Amino acid sequence: PPAWDRATRPPPSPLQPFGLPLAPCRFFSNNKIQVELDESSGVAMMKFKSPPVNSLSLEFLTEFSIGLEKLENNRACRGVIITSAIPKVFSSGLDITEMCGKSMEHYAEFWRAVQELWLRLYGSNMVTVAAVNGSSPAGGCLVALSCDYRIMAENPKFYIGLNEAQLGIVAPFWFKDTFVNVVGHRIAERSLQLGCLHPTPEALKLGLVDELVPEEKLMEKAAAVMAQWLALPDHARQLTKTMMRKAVLDRLVAHREEDIKNFITFVSKESIQKSLRVYMEMLKKRK
Amino acid sequence: PPAWDRATRPPPSPLQPFGLPLAPCRFFSNNKIQVELDESSGVAMMKFKSPPVNSLSLEFLTEFSIGLEKLENNRACRGVIITSAIPKVFSSGLDITEMCGKSMEHYAEFWRAVQELWLRLYGSNMVTVAAVNGSSPAGGCLVALSCDYRIMAENPKFYIGLNEAQLGIVAPFWFKDTFVNVVGHRIAERSLQLGCLHPTPEALKLGLVDELVPEEKLMEKAAAVMAQWLALPDHARQLTKTMMRKAVLDRLVAHREEDIKNFITFVSKESIQKSLRVYMEMLKKRK
Amino acid sequence: PPAWDRATRPPPSPLQPFGLPLAPCRFFSNNKIQVELDESSGVAMMKFKSPPVNSLSLEFLTEFSIGLEKLENNRACRGVIITSAIPKVFSSGLDITEMCGKSMEHYAEFWRAVQELWLRLYGSNMVTVAAVNGSSPAGGCLVALSCDYRIMAENPKFYIGLNEAQLGIVAPFWFKDTFVNVVGHRIAERSLQLGCLHPTPEALKLGLVDELVPEEKLMEKAAAVMAQWLALPDHARQLTKTMMRKAVLDRLVAHREEDIKNFITFVSKESIQKSLRVYMEMLKKRK
Repeated sequence: PPAWDRATRPPPSPLQPFGLPLAPCRFFSNNKIQVELDESSGVAMMKFKSPPVNSLSLEFLTEFSIGLEKLENNRACRGVIITSAIPKVFSSGLDITEMCGKSMEHYAEFWRAVQELWLRLYGSNMVTVAAVNGSSPAGGCLVALSCDYRIMAENPKFYIGLNEAQLGIVAPFWFKDTFVNVVGHRIAERSLQLGCLHPTPEALKLGLVDELVPEEKLMEKAAAVMAQWLALPDHARQLTKTMMRKAVLDRLVAHREEDIKNFITFVSKESIQKSLRVYMEMLKKRK
Repeated sequence: PPAWDRATRPPPSPLQPFGLPLAPCRFFSNNKIQVELDESSGVAMMKFKSPPVNSLSLEFLTEFSIGLEKLENNRACRGVIITSAIPKVFSSGLDITEMCGKSMEHYAEFWRAVQELWLRLYGSNMVTVAAVNGSSPAGGCLVALSCDYRIMAENPKFYIGLNEAQLGIVAPFWFKDTFVNVVGHRIAERSLQLGCLHPTPEALKLGLVDELVPEEKLMEKAAAVMAQWLALPDHARQLTKTMMRKAVLDRLVAHREEDIKNFITFVSKESIQKSLRVYMEMLKKRK
Repeated sequence: PPAWDRATRPPPSPLQPFGLPLAPCRFFSNNKIQVELDESSGVAMMKFKSPPVNSLSLEFLTEFSIGLEKLENNRACRGVIITSAIPKVFSSGLDITEMCGKSMEHYAEFWRAVQELWLRLYGSNMVTVAAVNGSSPAGGCLVALSCDYRIMAENPKFYIGLNEAQLGIVAPFWFKDTFVNVVGHRIAERSLQLGCLHPTPEALKLGLVDELVPEEKLMEKAAAVMAQWLALPDHARQLTKTMMRKAVLDRLVAHREEDIKNFITFVSKESIQKSLRVYMEMLKKRK
């Protein structure tokens, strides 16, 4: 069952705030994402460490979803800070190689993994804070938008946005719904149509991120914000979050198979395959 | 029939703008709320005078609803200014004693009265201006949010917000809908999850109130705003208001019994009863 | 089929960006609207030239819809800039003479033409930029709101808004939906109820227009904005636009006949006819 159906987890007792950890875990790291849990604070840190640019490949997405699930089921964990271990990039978004020259089955599996990650993250019962310490286009932006709070490092070279239109592709409706919930209809309409990548001051002005801080203060700030959110009783906060996000989560759940079919149809068009190949060539030359 | 179904009241003729008063009434005061109607302007003043903090008890809510209904049915009345006769507090919100250690029947009756008040106020055909002259947490904030316009006295000690989450409880969906209609999805999501009580400058910045004025200018400003709204023909203004608010009003009407059941189930949980008792003890010690 | 169902037009090839023009057309002008198409840029200019105030009469609306349809079907055209050839006024909105003392059949035909225009403009696959070079009340404001981007000439005498309530009439739900999509629920609620005509700085602050420029820079700016939007591949941009606007377009399509009936019932009321006659007399005296 998706995470937002499990908001019935009982609130922690005031004297033993995090319950008995059912599955004590201080550190687990896989190939692509490093996870540390500080049981004293109840806060986990998830660090993307998939060079060169933390692309959301099928493997990355699977690890990300499993990591979130483990934390969600761990009574010792109440919140997670998501950040990058790679300099200058938070996540570059969906891995284009997963969409290029693969089988229909692969496209379906990949897209289901993208959906799964979003359903888990946007519907998480944990407090989720994005510490955006680098650029965050497309799917990377979606990860940040799906958290409860977004703090971005102030850096004139960093940008964030759902820039799919620039690549000739269209953000799916649930990317759009998540975006509209954060910045409103008008800003979303313009930004999505133009495929904008917003520099940090603009991202703050539009409400796409909640706060900008100097890079060296980012983790400190993220911890302070997390502490503020964890000061609230979990149960009421979780039910409130569910109330705010349920309509948009339910919409994907109701149209999940259709959305997969649409993705397959779209991505397997020769014109789209051609665009993606051109784009990949360009990326390779850049390196 | 709820007020928003009665928008078909004919518009006032230009020469006799308020119609013949069917039930002339200049002043009526009950235990908890004082109501004065100035027939020359068509503006009523409702003053909460239920010490110590204008809690929305069953008795208060009933008087409030009846007062609104009387004004609504009085052709001499076109608008109402809602304010407090108690220093420093507009309304402290729902009366917790109504939710503590009472029978299921009592909880049902109480919750129905809360719903009734909101349906009348949010759906009122009159122009409704909140002159918020003190703090306004939880249900007090809902009263302000349900008006057409909110003016708040500038005072560093006054705050306003839907802070239910702080008490371990969850604002019902129609509190949330009303809030979202005023401040948008993103601000509502964050403010509700954190149970924020916003100081006045922040409330203005977020759009939670429309204007801040020095305390001594509050009533003058409220009268000026009311005059501006009453300059419009009633009929067109009422139909427009209905168009804007109907979806949210209809949603509660469609789910009213379910909402009562949810409230009873929630409030009669031992964990919630315990939280409320702890909170009440704390309030008593404060005095 | 309405324009937003035709988003399947294939994207232009990178080497031949505008396709072969199927119906080469450089200039066509009817009675009320002048249209010029620059095939090298793919940008058309539509200029309202119906003195004295570009009222949206049945004839004007019909020409406007046909003009849009011609451009939409012309592969050489990718975007349209909409502006006025009449000094000081963009468009004064719906022509009141069409609503006064006419037959039921006429009201129905007129209203269907208003709907048709909006469905074509709001759902257009072209990039639509409003260069608002004069006042733009009511239906004039709707035309601007239906474009992708609004640039207004900075002039203390120009105003813009959906001021229907001032005339004792009510903006239809799809005017409201379009407005809410641009400025959000709270601003729309207040502005519609008060029938506000906003001066240009206020219009910018509320997000009702995207930019203000000195009058002499307006067309230059509109061309620059258009170039920015045309830098995106058409297909992805069109599908994104459709995704953002479809819900609101579909709502009118689903309720179109009902909406016409409502209009006829409303406009043929004696009280409304009287208000409109009074208003028309006032307008005549002003001249």
